[in-house]
Amino acid sequence: MERKIDSYLPFILKSINIARIENNTILIGDRRAYPFKKEFVACHSIEEVAVAIETMVTQGGGPMRAAMVGMLFLAGKADRGEIKPSADIFIKAKERLQITRPTNTTMARILEDLVDIICKEIEIGKSLESAVQGYIDNFQKEYEKSYFTMAEIGSGLIEDGDGVLTMCFAETSFILTIALALEQGKNIKVYSPETRPYLQGARLTAPCLMEIGADVTLITDSMCAHVMSQGKIQKYMTAVDIVTSDGWVANKIGTFQNAVTANYHGIPYFPLAIDPDMTRKGRESIIIEERDPEEVKMIRGVPTTRPDMKAYYPAFDIVPPHLISGIITPKGLISAYGLGNVYKNWGKE
Amino acid sequence: MERKIDSYLPFILKSINIARIENNTILIGDRRAYPFKKEFVACHSIEEVAVAIETMVTQGGGPMRAAMVGMLFLAGKADRGEIKPSADIFIKAKERLQITRPTNTTMARILEDLVDIICKEIEIGKSLESAVQGYIDNFQKEYEKSYFTMAEIGSGLIEDGDGVLTMCFAETSFILTIALALEQGKNIKVYSPETRPYLQGARLTAPCLMEIGADVTLITDSMCAHVMSQGKIQKYMTAVDIVTSDGWVANKIGTFQNAVTANYHGIPYFPLAIDPDMTRKGRESIIIEERDPEEVKMIRGVPTTRPDMKAYYPAFDIVPPHLISGIITPKGLISAYGLGNVYKNWGKE
Repeated sequence: MERKIDSYLPFILKSINIARIENNTILIGDRRAYPFKKEFVACHSIEEVAVAIETMVTQGGGPMRAAMVGMLFLAGKADRGEIKPSADIFIKAKERLQITRPTNTTMARILEDLVDIICKEIEIGKSLESAVQGYIDNFQKEYEKSYFTMAEIGSGLIEDGDGVLTMCFAETSFILTIALALEQGKNIKVYSPETRPYLQGARLTAPCLMEIGADVTLITDSMCAHVMSQGKIQKYMTAVDIVTSDGWVANKIGTFQNAVTANYHGIPYFPLAIDPDMTRKGRESIIIEERDPEEVKMIRGVPTTRPDMKAYYPAFDIVPPHLISGIITPKGLISAYGLGNVYKNWGKE
Repeated sequence: MERKIDSYLPFILKSINIARIENNTILIGDRRAYPFKKEFVACHSIEEVAVAIETMVTQGGGPMRAAMVGMLFLAGKADRGEIKPSADIFIKAKERLQITRPTNTTMARILEDLVDIICKEIEIGKSLESAVQGYIDNFQKEYEKSYFTMAEIGSGLIEDGDGVLTMCFAETSFILTIALALEQGKNIKVYSPETRPYLQGARLTAPCLMEIGADVTLITDSMCAHVMSQGKIQKYMTAVDIVTSDGWVANKIGTFQNAVTANYHGIPYFPLAIDPDMTRKGRESIIIEERDPEEVKMIRGVPTTRPDMKAYYPAFDIVPPHLISGIITPKGLISAYGLGNVYKNWGKE
């Protein structure tokens, strides 16, 4: 019997709650409101979807699905004659969506694919909506397969009795890893650092893990090494924003410092990477986004210091390959030094 | 010309703003309100002073002065005949104040000294107030001497162009170190982590440094190692809550993790310790206070996660001696392995 990924996942990670079309409206799950409220932002145009992505209504893997659903919405409108089925409209939509997350190369590629398909369908006068829906269904199937592969590897690395530290919100790859470990009957504890300034750990990771029945404990970002020193942590796992071809990992700020202290304590670090970026090489190929320092001076809108204080907000940090015990990918558990060989056909497949 | 410590210090660290008597009222500087407001809590009894200490109106070195000022207040009342000058009243006051901070052995010792002096004065019928005031003045003079010695050592370790990382609120020892480095004409930058959950870095350290004209940048606790990796940090300095006789340091949670990552980056760590505790030995002699986990789930009263989330709040962590480059004390810069020799007459002086 085929396993359904959504049956393992918490509310905000189920595909229909990331983004869906209902009554001619695009509904995007509002991750800013979670876990305080389960709300959706209603969008009626590509521009509204783009703004929703830009204002962090959805994040992580969410914008990719929101963008696809946006294109599906537009295709339906064209099929019903509400807009002209012209290539121009779809190309403009693609370009608007692509600039919402300039570093998300996977989303950019998907949008290119979708516009190619749509343009071909326009030429031969077929239903655009069913072509886009077919692409999304196929994409979702491949993605689910990749996630199950990664989560099988991840859950296999977790032993009965383990404590697992994570950082930020590692979404489906990590949540599914924990879900499978629980399904395997393993008694495990997960520690989720709150992940200042944006609190992804407190707001998203910890509540999602609680929802799937995991034993999760919220800590502050300053407690990770201490919890390790107490013997409470046996594995450290995070998602990644980028893995370079030579095994440098960029992820949410704090990931690197935990990797250093994990290494000090002899705790292995396993990043989960669905798509290593073989076009990049070395630390220098990664540009760290600096966000508005005002965010460091507030928490959920409440000031933490003088309004005229200087602050600094690098949003990501970089882990060198020697601190990585193995990268969990859809192609297996790979040495940070061995990606080149495994992904030698990357981009040509 | 004698230097006055208060002329170097920011508002909340000046002795009269920590605690003073004004119009028969004890005024304690409210560190919970700072830097948003400069307020004082008015106390009219030892019980009110004790509650103020317990509810974190003052912290760090503050309770010690507040307790002394509380005894001065009581002595004045006895001199004026408003209360009976009986040893019992002062012993009860001492005991009430001592239990507000059971781990603060310095405060406990001062209160014992004060009650001894008061009891002797009661016997011979002399002014209690002037005896207590004399003790406080002498204590303050000795303390100022110790702080200047430590800050001379600390500022001597900081070189022109250095970036200095701290953690939590290292109060007078660190603020004076930076003040002297600035007086020496050194161009330095200080990085202050916000210090979750109680935000001592954001609320106290960073504003205090700004007030004395230092170039300070607020970061989150997750950014320390990244800022080190960028070459922005050359020295790491904190206060301590305890130093054991064999060089183990306990301080606010997060101190240890920065010590590990500083060591990884080749950055020396210098804790500032006015009074090593030679009665303790080894990690096991230090008990880590665990505070209410609800504090991890809030920031200044605003919830950061589900109300039913499990959380964990160890308030301190422990740095092993091999991660310490030297302990700055009133007796000099001492190897963490060399305290025993330098403090061999501890408690007998």
